[in-house]
Amino acid sequence: MENTIRMTGALEPRSSWTATRCSLAKTLEVVHTRSAMLILREAFYGATRFDEFAERTGLSEPITSARLRELVAAGLLRREPYQEPGARTRQLYRLTEMGVELLPALVALMQWGDRWLQPDGSAPIELRHEECAGRVHAELHCEHGHRVGADELAAARGPRPVQRA
Amino acid sequence: MENTIRMTGALEPRSSWTATRCSLAKTLEVVHTRSAMLILREAFYGATRFDEFAERTGLSEPITSARLRELVAAGLLRREPYQEPGARTRQLYRLTEMGVELLPALVALMQWGDRWLQPDGSAPIELRHEECAGRVHAELHCEHGHRVGADELAAARGPRPVQRA
Repeated sequence: MENTIRMTGALEPRSSWTATRCSLAKTLEVVHTRSAMLILREAFYGATRFDEFAERTGLSEPITSARLRELVAAGLLRREPYQEPGARTRQLYRLTEMGVELLPALVALMQWGDRWLQPDGSAPIELRHEECAGRVHAELHCEHGHRVGADELAAARGPRPVQRA
Repeated sequence: MENTIRMTGALEPRSSWTATRCSLAKTLEVVHTRSAMLILREAFYGATRFDEFAERTGLSEPITSARLRELVAAGLLRREPYQEPGARTRQLYRLTEMGVELLPALVALMQWGDRWLQPDGSAPIELRHEECAGRVHAELHCEHGHRVGADELAAARGPRPVQRA
């Protein structure tokens, strides 16, 4: 069927199994709030200090503090102590590898908003490839280098089995 | 700085503007719940009937009903009447173009969960390109065909100005 993912092998029919180990569901248990995503946006935009996160996201200080703590606990940010001369030690927050790898998802969500939710479909911010200045998009590609559309996808059972219904 | 997006032109420095028109924030106002994402997952996996969405997501009927209604109102799903012989007319739910275009974001979130949240980093479900059976991933690419890493991105002001601080 057009624009749905074809179930293959042990995944067919869809009604024969339950998605108990779904990686999308697991991801959404970790980054399920708008505020967490906005904190991560600002980390990618270069924020490292608590007050930068609070100011640039427009979140309250208690929310900013809670989200930073959760993102550190989940492993997406790490704390790094720093000290300016004569001041007390403070913490910087930096993206871990785990955090950095969420970038394609954030870009995909942002660009969907550019296209569907901006009054004239225009992006307030464009992402470009530093080397060639080409506009950057999140896309589906296969390991053989093809760009893949929503109507060209098949789902197969991964290396570990899904749970049977 | 490594793994952060370099601000260029009018976006530099980051402290000079506020992200009031942010497309990521707008997207998260529309699809901000785990349950909405799971409903969309099942739409991509071929569900069309209310009971399929409820059963396959494991959501309660009231939640399923609320989310379907919201996704229709937001424009990601559309209702389509159908009638089996001798039964009353019911509604099917199908992805609109707006809904279909959220797929790269869903795949990106799912694959991040595969890598970081599954006990052994293995995917319960693999997505493959129907034509060549190659494994499919959500990736950042530029319009000149380069694959782009998180450390190779620059942000530029889009066609409409961001709001100055």
